[in-house]
Amino acid sequence: MIKLYGFPISNYYNMVKLAMLEKGLAFEEENQMPSQEAAFKSMSPMGKVPCIETPEGFLSETSAILEYLDELKSTPALLPAHDFARAKVREIVRVIELYVELPARRHYPHLFFGAPRNEAAVEEAKPVLERGIAALKQLCHFRPFVGGEAFGMADIYAYYTFGLANAATKGIYNWDIIQAIPGLGATMAVIGSRASTKKCDAAREAAMAAFVASKK
Amino acid sequence: MIKLYGFPISNYYNMVKLAMLEKGLAFEEENQMPSQEAAFKSMSPMGKVPCIETPEGFLSETSAILEYLDELKSTPALLPAHDFARAKVREIVRVIELYVELPARRHYPHLFFGAPRNEAAVEEAKPVLERGIAALKQLCHFRPFVGGEAFGMADIYAYYTFGLANAATKGIYNWDIIQAIPGLGATMAVIGSRASTKKCDAAREAAMAAFVASKK
Repeated sequence: MIKLYGFPISNYYNMVKLAMLEKGLAFEEENQMPSQEAAFKSMSPMGKVPCIETPEGFLSETSAILEYLDELKSTPALLPAHDFARAKVREIVRVIELYVELPARRHYPHLFFGAPRNEAAVEEAKPVLERGIAALKQLCHFRPFVGGEAFGMADIYAYYTFGLANAATKGIYNWDIIQAIPGLGATMAVIGSRASTKKCDAAREAAMAAFVASKK
Repeated sequence: MIKLYGFPISNYYNMVKLAMLEKGLAFEEENQMPSQEAAFKSMSPMGKVPCIETPEGFLSETSAILEYLDELKSTPALLPAHDFARAKVREIVRVIELYVELPARRHYPHLFFGAPRNEAAVEEAKPVLERGIAALKQLCHFRPFVGGEAFGMADIYAYYTFGLANAATKGIYNWDIIQAIPGLGATMAVIGSRASTKKCDAAREAAMAAFVASKK
């Protein structure tokens, strides 16, 4: 039994949760906010969520967790079986993470948590995002899934990156990055129609409603 | 035969080159600067180096390339055989990349290429680096290698991250992040004494000398 620490508004939390649901792994959810307290950092050294507790110990960093889960239970696989095809999916995943998620994330404190607009971030993130979106237009398949014919790791990253990131680019640059990648919107709808994704999204919406109510 | 595109001053180029030397893979080097030209972006969609050309096509993003090389030729392995041990090495690698290499890199334009000092980067990178260094103190083994008893992926990332990143933190914060992690300095010396590393470093120093001479 794996224990998943985090909270259902976190996009990285939902990536790991979606992977476990897709793979049919048994897990429990433990509510945990990011924290710099020593007790939590003994489990997740950066104080970030998600982290997981396995029978062998704790593990953090979403990409390390997803690779671990895929090796722990090989079917259904999150990566193609063939070496080069696996590599090309990992390339897509890194492009989504490094050149879409991370630059878009710099706008979240302003857009979602009331921090002042970060003008350096507005300027620095734009060219990175432009190149990231162009790279994904070139790399993604959408037949119908991001990495090819089977659902997998690239879909998990895309689905839980583009929802938030697109809100950020629309808010800051008036730029719809889902529409900017032909085929992504339709693939997002396909991914969002899966039972596993619906389960994650329902928990996220309930947690978001509770969060909003608590601020009133 | 694999073709490696990039230039020997790039730390990510040296990570891939070191991996191929350690694994005894046959490869050719092709001198290539980062470029936004369409011809190069057809090979490396972000226009970054390194990228590799394989008999099956092009591949970019260092972490995807290293995983590919490790699957292509399984010995000597860059990751431990056991699932959880593999996961913990990947966790170290991600912490080095996301919370040391990427924040330190924001200072490289100022320190190495004469750009103005980026005050937002000075302020934003510091807490990320502090947490990253604390996390690595907790996660790394140094017995004698970063991830344990065998040389591997964590050593490749550490060696070609900390050399440059430490120059950045010393220059900007007067902070020696190698000394800040007990055991890292000795492990860096062990890694640097390998024949493979010496070969990469000699090529880097020659390229750096040629670069400096060209600017005089």
